[in-house]
Amino acid sequence: MSDAPEEIEALIALMARLPGLGPRSARRAVLHLIKKRSKLLIPLADSMRLVAETARECLRCGNIGTADICGICESPKRATGELCVVEDVADLWAMERAGVFKGRYHVLGGVLSALDAVGPEELRIPRLLERIAEEQISEVILALNATVDGQTTAHYIADQLEPTGVMLTSLAQGVPIGGELDYLDDGTIGAALRARKAL
Amino acid sequence: MSDAPEEIEALIALMARLPGLGPRSARRAVLHLIKKRSKLLIPLADSMRLVAETARECLRCGNIGTADICGICESPKRATGELCVVEDVADLWAMERAGVFKGRYHVLGGVLSALDAVGPEELRIPRLLERIAEEQISEVILALNATVDGQTTAHYIADQLEPTGVMLTSLAQGVPIGGELDYLDDGTIGAALRARKAL
Repeated sequence: MSDAPEEIEALIALMARLPGLGPRSARRAVLHLIKKRSKLLIPLADSMRLVAETARECLRCGNIGTADICGICESPKRATGELCVVEDVADLWAMERAGVFKGRYHVLGGVLSALDAVGPEELRIPRLLERIAEEQISEVILALNATVDGQTTAHYIADQLEPTGVMLTSLAQGVPIGGELDYLDDGTIGAALRARKAL
Repeated sequence: MSDAPEEIEALIALMARLPGLGPRSARRAVLHLIKKRSKLLIPLADSMRLVAETARECLRCGNIGTADICGICESPKRATGELCVVEDVADLWAMERAGVFKGRYHVLGGVLSALDAVGPEELRIPRLLERIAEEQISEVILALNATVDGQTTAHYIADQLEPTGVMLTSLAQGVPIGGELDYLDDGTIGAALRARKAL
């Protein structure tokens, strides 16, 4: 605590709840905001207000947009037969930045987790099964994080999709581009070796 | 860039200008805000608006408060004879957290810097001289950062204050509490040795 006025302490406490900011960096950020009142603080308050009023989840895929159906789902340029399943909107954005996937997405909104009591109903898994039945989906690509919970979720989805007969694939695991073997964990090296390719 | 709607991209761009957040962490922070719309995003927008409207610099010392004269300057509990000179409000808050200084402050608003073209007029140094003339100041304590610019500023202030005859002191330099010699830089060890005390 400092003896800043309570309005400012309240702002520091809220800022400290952002991922990536702790109490100390929240304090620095707030001082910076007060110094840049007209160039940063007021525009930021207005921008947050606008996003709070306009942002919403796409009813079809769970992406964040400003309409009931998001830009990707609406786009006639996107292939309709392929669905890429991601854990979170951040992962969808990462896929889009890579710019190689031309189909559409399905955002689960998390992964199965016994520890956090997240079951299939908490995620958008039932909606995935509905979409496969309703839309003409030929391939589901699992782009889940290579964590224990991510892989548990992948196996659960694979079980659920088996009766539908849809093709199910998953991102390849291996050495990242530019990666040095010396800095890679044993699991990644093992996966890359098992999935080795003929040159 | 991602293909998030422009309202959200605008918020990400503003958030990325906060110290401690880069483009990637700004993106994560914005997604977090959208998920916690009513618990965090809206309160944060409101809190920023309130701070933008109420926060102002103390006309006397440069501290940030919500009135023309800040709480510390107004407090009858603070000793009036001692002025602690700090670079920035963050440093004032750090001093207050330590809770050992019972006098009042003078915030310079920066340090002299040839590189950034910051001269005495850009800082609150003329105001410091005025305060020493107007208020009954017996001691000025320099609590400036132990950087080159901080020490240059300290020497400049010492030159300016010499004719006033006010007592001028500065924070002691030495080994931090809990500090290990092995991890300290040579300059600190040298300063601690030169300022050694009889046990």
